[in-house]
Order: sequence, then structure tokens, then C-alpha cells
Amino acid sequence: MLRANAIVGQSGGPTSAINATLSGVIKACLGNKERINTLYGVKNGIEGLLKDDIIELSGMFCDRNKLKRLEATPSSALGSCRMRLPESFNDIVYRRIFDIFKKYGIGYFFYIGGNDSMDTVSKLDKYARTCGYGIRIIGIPKTIDNDLTETDHTPGYGSAAKYIATTVSEILRDCASYTVKAVTVIEIMGRDAGWLTCAASLPKAVIGEGVDLIYLPERTFSMDKFISSVNKALERHPNVVIAVSEGIRYENGAYVGELEQSGNKDVFGHKYLAGVSKVLSRAISENIGCKVRAIELNLLQRCAAHLQSAVDISESIRIGKAAVERALKGESGRMISLERRKGKYSVRIKSVDIDAVANKVRYVPCSFINKDGNYVTKECIEYLLPLVLGETKKEYKNGLPVYCIIK
Amino acid sequence: MLRANAIVGQSGGPTSAINATLSGVIKACLGNKERINTLYGVKNGIEGLLKDDIIELSGMFCDRNKLKRLEATPSSALGSCRMRLPESFNDIVYRRIFDIFKKYGIGYFFYIGGNDSMDTVSKLDKYARTCGYGIRIIGIPKTIDNDLTETDHTPGYGSAAKYIATTVSEILRDCASYTVKAVTVIEIMGRDAGWLTCAASLPKAVIGEGVDLIYLPERTFSMDKFISSVNKALERHPNVVIAVSEGIRYENGAYVGELEQSGNKDVFGHKYLAGVSKVLSRAISENIGCKVRAIELNLLQRCAAHLQSAVDISESIRIGKAAVERALKGESGRMISLERRKGKYSVRIKSVDIDAVANKVRYVPCSFINKDGNYVTKECIEYLLPLVLGETKKEYKNGLPVYCIIK
Repeated sequence: MLRANAIVGQSGGPTSAINATLSGVIKACLGNKERINTLYGVKNGIEGLLKDDIIELSGMFCDRNKLKRLEATPSSALGSCRMRLPESFNDIVYRRIFDIFKKYGIGYFFYIGGNDSMDTVSKLDKYARTCGYGIRIIGIPKTIDNDLTETDHTPGYGSAAKYIATTVSEILRDCASYTVKAVTVIEIMGRDAGWLTCAASLPKAVIGEGVDLIYLPERTFSMDKFISSVNKALERHPNVVIAVSEGIRYENGAYVGELEQSGNKDVFGHKYLAGVSKVLSRAISENIGCKVRAIELNLLQRCAAHLQSAVDISESIRIGKAAVERALKGESGRMISLERRKGKYSVRIKSVDIDAVANKVRYVPCSFINKDGNYVTKECIEYLLPLVLGETKKEYKNGLPVYCIIK
Repeated sequence: MLRANAIVGQSGGPTSAINATLSGVIKACLGNKERINTLYGVKNGIEGLLKDDIIELSGMFCDRNKLKRLEATPSSALGSCRMRLPESFNDIVYRRIFDIFKKYGIGYFFYIGGNDSMDTVSKLDKYARTCGYGIRIIGIPKTIDNDLTETDHTPGYGSAAKYIATTVSEILRDCASYTVKAVTVIEIMGRDAGWLTCAASLPKAVIGEGVDLIYLPERTFSMDKFISSVNKALERHPNVVIAVSEGIRYENGAYVGELEQSGNKDVFGHKYLAGVSKVLSRAISENIGCKVRAIELNLLQRCAAHLQSAVDISESIRIGKAAVERALKGESGRMISLERRKGKYSVRIKSVDIDAVANKVRYVPCSFINKDGNYVTKECIEYLLPLVLGETKKEYKNGLPVYCIIK
């Protein structure tokens, strides 16, 4: 392939590391000027592509300090979208996208995202092959959920796990300051896979003070067993702390966080959907009668860039670079992936077939969950520990972190 | 006063800086060995005093590194309580406390806490004077709420404000990544005073990206005006972010966060009390119909020591030291206080009469709130800015912050 332009986009839920990957892509493009002429960025993923919402990145990031700042910026600096490409290649959408590619002389497309975004990569690659358009399309993984297949872990997960572990350790200190019997339920993201909630096990492993119980969506939830486990924990000490995935379900498949069965409606007549931490708190209050508090970590777990994991950020930059290098070598329709080496922690960066990843979900394996389904195993903790290692240096202005905001 | 022993306790809600003050007390006691023989710590404030739950601190903290670690530890390392001393000095409780003082040869009592704790200091000081027991009792302020009178601000507030400002800036980045019209409501602590919520104004002042609306308990809330303000903000841009104090009320005095009037009950028959962010989200959803998200910062704002303000920690240590120095000079029944100097930010440490502080609340002044009651003024931002300045250095082990845990 002759000299061509490249374009990069971001998609799906934000993470603290997705801009580090963008930085990696920019660095590698700037370092390969003999092959890549101009690097463009598309705003809000393929949604912006269809609107021709495209900016030039090559010139914008000549300054190394600006790239450093980009790496420390949470969420998608280019904006994101949640759009799914149609199944039929006859759809006008494909023609439109490739017209834009043609207009900007695009020979390389890099798409940073989760499993839905890999579906986009797969479809665009197949369409390009069908119509004979010469382009190399590479998917670059990111998601705090850590639920992509064919990779040891996903960039973005390590930082989210570090935020969760740190926050849980601080909540544990807070809870320990009172002598009154109390239970605190911490609700962590994870609709189908419990990876993020596993990170709540780290304070006990590292500092020796930890949560008492951990519940993941991979195991069916029983309220009776739960109450009995909480009672047992309260016999051991007065401040019980529990970590729970938002997506845990009863045996009948209903989410524990749904109160649909109560038929309750709010002031506006809406059916009330509580979070799982609120539902469990209420159950504890009713069945045990002690003080109880529900904490939802909410958006913070995916955007708290002030607590990035240095390992995560370094890997995120590396996979961004690797995507460009692989494309230059002629690969297309592939996703960059991380393979963990045996022994002391390190990763090898490789690429995998995009169709082995697109639309698939990787769950927490059985060997990571204890027999009672209310904590994780040593194997799980050993998997997690290297991913949260190291702190990144931050630039502060007047006491607040400084970001790179792309207008 | 001859050589005597000293005792220190912590009380009320935890903060990220309360242990820095404890460190200041320990340092000053260790530095005045000719006057203070042994420094004891009481577990869980006066509750622990009554139970004779007392440990020796002098020996425990000879190591400077351990003090550094203590300063970085969130929540009350000695444990806390929420106990109010009886009004009548004839109560057995007073006799019991002073018997304990006698048993340990206590000539100095330092109590770190909020306005309830200052009530304890006031009562114990008066009782001591009544019965002629020679002891010097000093109150040392702490509270994230910043609602103590007779001090420019309270130690603990700066770190909480820094956490809130940083977190809000990250949420703003997250929200900016989508193009769909959406409103995010961030609920911040503050039942009666809106100081913490004011800190949500800092990202706009420092980084240029900020929340659209700020609501404090100091102003009566009107749902109609609120919806109209949100609509106006949505005309300007698609991602509206709102900061709101948990304690805002309607004109009739009812908390907005209460859904009592709906008569709703949950599955267990409890009257349902939603948080204010949930109530406002529901109102937006009903009246405007856009996507909406409620975020409750919850405990994190008082225990997130990984985001301490360096100014706050430095002042917290200084007031701890000042308490010991003032006691040695003969003061008793006083609270240490911070006075802001004119010009470039600095504080003078002084002491004030405890009865001018105990049981009183300081509200956000009128001049800090805009005319419409939905944002803060430049004067407020200028007051806030110096308090969040600087970052503290942290000790990490395996990717997690290390704490000083006193057993």
C-alpha cells in the first residue's frame, strides 16, 4: 500500500485509559510519516463519520506535553457513540462511510472500543473486502468491564480496578471508625460479568483489611443465603462491608436490583427500579435490623483518571502503537490483544481475528469464585494484582487535574 | 502546672484530614516531653473514655514514617463516636470521665471534632472548673461540612472540596463524550449548609468546563424554576450537569429528597425515602423527557484520602500542634481556629471561646450565592480556591495506598 491517510475513532463507554490508547495511535502515526500522511480523528465514532465530523490530529499533537496530558484525560477525548451498523451491506450507511473514507484518502482506520465496536470493525472490514476498497481496519480493545474474549484483560480495566480497590479501602477505614453494628453495601458496575467487583478483594490481599462478602453475576443469588452470610459476618465484627455487582440475579433470572415485583410506582406513576445496593440494604434492615448504608460507585469507576494504574496506561499506549504497526504490516479485520506471559508479570501484544471477539462476552471463570459463591479465590487475586500496579504522574493547575479537551 | 499526661480523642464524622491533626498533636506532645510525660489516645471518643478504652500513643509513634502514614490515612484512626454529654453535671458520666482522667494522670485533653464535639469540650471544661480538677481541655476543629463558626474554614473541608471538584471534573468529561441530550444530577453532602456543594464550581473556574447549575440548602427550592433553568441549560448544550446539596428544601420546609408525600412504601412496607438526586432526576425525566442520571457522591467525599489537599493537611497538622502549645500556655475551654490573612493566602492560628462554636452552624453567606439561587458568585470561588491547593505524596504498596491502622 502506498502512502495514505489514517483516521481514528473512539466508541462505547468511557474509561480512564482510552485516551492513552489514542495517544499511542497518534505517536505511531507521527512516527511513520513515510507511510501515513495525515492522521484524522472522527468525533463520536461512526456516528460522527456519517456526519463528516472529522478533525486533523497530526498537527494538533506535535507537542509531546499535549500527548502526556491526553494520556491523563478521562473519557473519550474524541467523543463516543453507541451505534450499531446494519446487518445488510446494501444499506446506504456503508456507502456513506466509504465515501467519507475516499474523500479523506483514508487507508487506515483504527477503532478503539468494546465488543460492540469490534462488531463495527468486523463489518467495515468485510464490506471493504466485498467492494475492493483498499483499507486496513484494526480494532483496539478498551472497556472497564474486562469482558472481551481473546485477550488476557482489556485496557481500562486496570485503572477502574485500582479506583474500586482504593475507594473500597477508604470506605473500610470510614466504616471501622464506629462501634455500632452496621452493614455497608457497595454496588459496582457489571451487568453480566463480575470482573470489576472482583477488584473489591484487593484491599484484604494487600493491606489486610477487606470486604466480608463479594457477589458476582456469574452466580445465582439467594436472599436467604445472603442474610445468613451477613449474620455470620456480623458475629465476627461490627462493621460488615459487602461488594456486589449491579447485575446479580435470582434463580428465576430476575435482577435483584429490580423492584418490579412490588408493583410500586413513584410520584410520577413510574414503576420504581432501585439499585441492587438499595434492595440489599433494605433486606438487611428488615431481616437483621442493624444500621445499613448503600453506596453506588456509579460513573466514577469508569472516569476517575486521577487514579489511573500505571501498568494499564502503559499497556494502553502500547496497544495503540501496535495497532498502527500491524496495519502497516498489512493486517486488517483484527483486534489487538494482550497475552500474559508466564512467571513475573509481562504481556506480549498480538492480534486476533475480530470475529472471535465481536459480540462475545467473557465471564469470570469458575476457578475465580469460591464454593459458597460469596468471595473470590486466590487465583483471582493473583490475576488481578499486577493490573493495578503503579501510579501515573499528574499535571495539576490550582489544585485540579488538567485535561486535554479536543473541541 | 507540673508535668502531666495528655490524652487525645476523635469524634463525629470522619474526614481525610482528621488524622493529620492527630499527627500534629502527637508531634507537639513528643516535642514537649519536659511538660507532657505520656500521650494517650482514647478509642471512639468519650464513648471509649467511659469504657477505659485507652492506648499509649507516645511509644507507638516514635517513628516519623509512621506519622507520615497516619497523615495519609482517612477516617478517625482512633475511632469515633456520636455521643452527647448530659446537661446536668450531677450525672454519673462526668464522675466516671474524671475518675479515668485521674487514673491516667491526665492534665491535658485534646478533642478533635465538629460542633457536637465542641459541646463536649465546653461541658468537660466547665465541669473541671466546678470541681476544681486541674486539666486543660482544648477543642480542635474538623469537619468536611465547613459549618463551624469562628473559623475561616474547618480542616477536612479542603480535602473534601478537592475530591468533589476533581470528581465533578471527571464526570463532566464523561458526560461530554455523548451527543444525546442528557442531564446528570450530582448529589453532594450538606444537610443544612451548602459548603461542599459550592466546590462543584471549581472545575469551571480552573479548567473552563463546569457544571451548569448549583443548588444549596441556604436557598428555598422551587421545582418549577428548576425545570425552567434545566431547559435553558439544555438549549445551550446537550450535556447538562447539576450539583445539588442533599439538604435542599421546598418553601414549606420539606426536604426535596423526601418522597413521603407520595405515600409510597417499599416491598417491606417501609415509607420510601429517595435521595434528592433521584427525585430531581425523576422530575427531569417526567417534565423534560431526556436521558438523566443521578450520582450520589456518598461516603467517598469524606474518606477519599488519596485526593487530600496539601494546604488542608498542612493546616490540619498545624492546628494539632497549636492545640498542645495553647494548652501548655494555660488555655482551656478554647477551640483552635483559622483566621485568613488579607492578600496572598495564608492563615493565622488562634484560639476562640468554645461556647462561641459549640452547637452553632455557619451557613454559606448570601454574597456567595447568585441572585437566581442556582450558582455561586466569584467571591465564593475566590474563598474556595486556596483551600484545595496542592497534592500530598502517598505511599503505595502493590498499587494501593498504605494506611496506619491503630488496633
